[in-house]
Amino acid sequence: MAAQEVSFDEMRELLAAMPGPNETVRDKVRSREAELTKPAGALGRLEALTEWFSTWQGRHPPQLERPRVAVFVANHGVVGRGVSAYPASVTAQMVENFQANGAAINQLCVQQDADLRVYEMALDHPTQDFTQEPAMTQTECARAMAYGMMAVEDGIDALCLGEMGIGNTTSAAAICCGLFGGDAANWVGSGTGVTGEALQRKAAAVQEAIALHGPAFEDPFEVARCIGGHELSAIIGAVLAARIARVPVLLDGYACTAAAAVLHQIDPAALDHCVVGHLSAEPGHRRLVDALGQIPVLDLGMRLGEGTGATLALGVLRAAISCHNGMSTFSEAQVDGPAR
Amino acid sequence: MAAQEVSFDEMRELLAAMPGPNETVRDKVRSREAELTKPAGALGRLEALTEWFSTWQGRHPPQLERPRVAVFVANHGVVGRGVSAYPASVTAQMVENFQANGAAINQLCVQQDADLRVYEMALDHPTQDFTQEPAMTQTECARAMAYGMMAVEDGIDALCLGEMGIGNTTSAAAICCGLFGGDAANWVGSGTGVTGEALQRKAAAVQEAIALHGPAFEDPFEVARCIGGHELSAIIGAVLAARIARVPVLLDGYACTAAAAVLHQIDPAALDHCVVGHLSAEPGHRRLVDALGQIPVLDLGMRLGEGTGATLALGVLRAAISCHNGMSTFSEAQVDGPAR
Repeated sequence: MAAQEVSFDEMRELLAAMPGPNETVRDKVRSREAELTKPAGALGRLEALTEWFSTWQGRHPPQLERPRVAVFVANHGVVGRGVSAYPASVTAQMVENFQANGAAINQLCVQQDADLRVYEMALDHPTQDFTQEPAMTQTECARAMAYGMMAVEDGIDALCLGEMGIGNTTSAAAICCGLFGGDAANWVGSGTGVTGEALQRKAAAVQEAIALHGPAFEDPFEVARCIGGHELSAIIGAVLAARIARVPVLLDGYACTAAAAVLHQIDPAALDHCVVGHLSAEPGHRRLVDALGQIPVLDLGMRLGEGTGATLALGVLRAAISCHNGMSTFSEAQVDGPAR
Repeated sequence: MAAQEVSFDEMRELLAAMPGPNETVRDKVRSREAELTKPAGALGRLEALTEWFSTWQGRHPPQLERPRVAVFVANHGVVGRGVSAYPASVTAQMVENFQANGAAINQLCVQQDADLRVYEMALDHPTQDFTQEPAMTQTECARAMAYGMMAVEDGIDALCLGEMGIGNTTSAAAICCGLFGGDAANWVGSGTGVTGEALQRKAAAVQEAIALHGPAFEDPFEVARCIGGHELSAIIGAVLAARIARVPVLLDGYACTAAAAVLHQIDPAALDHCVVGHLSAEPGHRRLVDALGQIPVLDLGMRLGEGTGATLALGVLRAAISCHNGMSTFSEAQVDGPAR
């Protein structure tokens, strides 16, 4: 997975060869779950998460001891269009903040005992302004995907994906509009906090981008290339590499899920090893998760990115697995089952 | 708070004297929150939880280092009516399971590094069958309240409340029906898993109890006494003791919230230091939290009790506070604020 570059055709080959869920493990999960000292189904989504995690990890009991939080960071040419509340300089400043343990994701990773890695992607080389030309060349996009794949190193057993990049909710909205159609305005939200004219500029930028590049969008990878971003391409690579390595993935909010959706539009099963950790307050995210058939684990009104939603959901996933692995069975605990 | 007994009148005096939120602390929370390196409001519910916790704890920065999970356990005479899927013997067996670290709540408390205390309440002396007579005498009910107050010991800085008791969702449904009115069937759910005739028996038991005791229900404490349970009375005492000691409370699911609702019906501000941790799959819980103006932190389809929902929410609360206390400010991190 350490290739410097992976062509779109090679990505398609990997997608065609990706592994499915382990059904033997699924049987083992269900069998044990039914014996644990609680009414059947009483742990709700926790039981579903355990089954999902185990079958995609391909082992029972499931193991969640070395989770990684990968945050990809890049800059966006479209910021020049005045689509963000913050200047592009903030992207690099936030990398410094991550390194100094000052950001929200740092606090959450300490709490979750998760391995935080921040992947800075040539911040002084933003994508092109995609209202004028493709955001990336195919080489640039493929290189970013290969870079993302490297986040899936041996030994990690769960992967939380996140991003940071001033301007990238504009790119996320454009990707969603390119993949799923509909009005640009329906996919655009306030992001870091734009309102009024800036919000109109943001919707207009998405609309112009769709008009300019739309004819190429029969191939979802072209959506990623023409109107995506370096960090979003890296997320695409990381999602696919995780599938191959049998590492279940927690997706974060709007930008992260939009990137992953590119793979879903090539193969609807491509995200089955992924769960959306948190429903963003960014309104397009609800529309997006519905289109993907995903039910986010958490709904806490957050809209920060950085992998914060995925990392909070990691706590729930860990809870699920610790219950499944650690609880006594009815017979071990000598607890009577339901009256017949 | 170590009284053996506290009369209903003494409870009312405590309610009349309970402290309010600390508004000076609220100002400090908001002032710091606005300076942290994230767009304003981007941590959503986490920001609201921090403000709630800090103002009720009455200190800034807020401190959450010694959370306690208190699980009250009791038996219910109404079980003789065939309202539960499990025999009453399971209550005592589950206490053994808690002591052997085999239950779901044990796993969650390890994960959250929370101090789990299980309070066993004379399991061989269940309440009376409340379809025939009051569940408790005033002395029994007041003693249970006083017992619950003892869970609020010096040094704890957050309290998760939970319960276990075969039959207690029947009691919870009766309390809700007694406090808020409406059809018994609308408050009754499958609990540990009853369906069909058993579910009808459960609704009938609630209806009979309301018909029998209803005239006494002008006083919400009489609701708790006539159709409640020992563990539910203990929760009432614990909630009030926590208010006085400035310990914010996370409530669990249906039975726990129903108990707390007794205080709310005496004084609508009595639960302002409480947040419901998780929306139970038990359908009456949605109706109940709406009546209380509460928005549960989590919605994971759980219906186990034991304090599991409250303890999962504790993880979110800790995340909120670690972000608030640990993040850098814009000026500390030298990150540019929004463009003007």
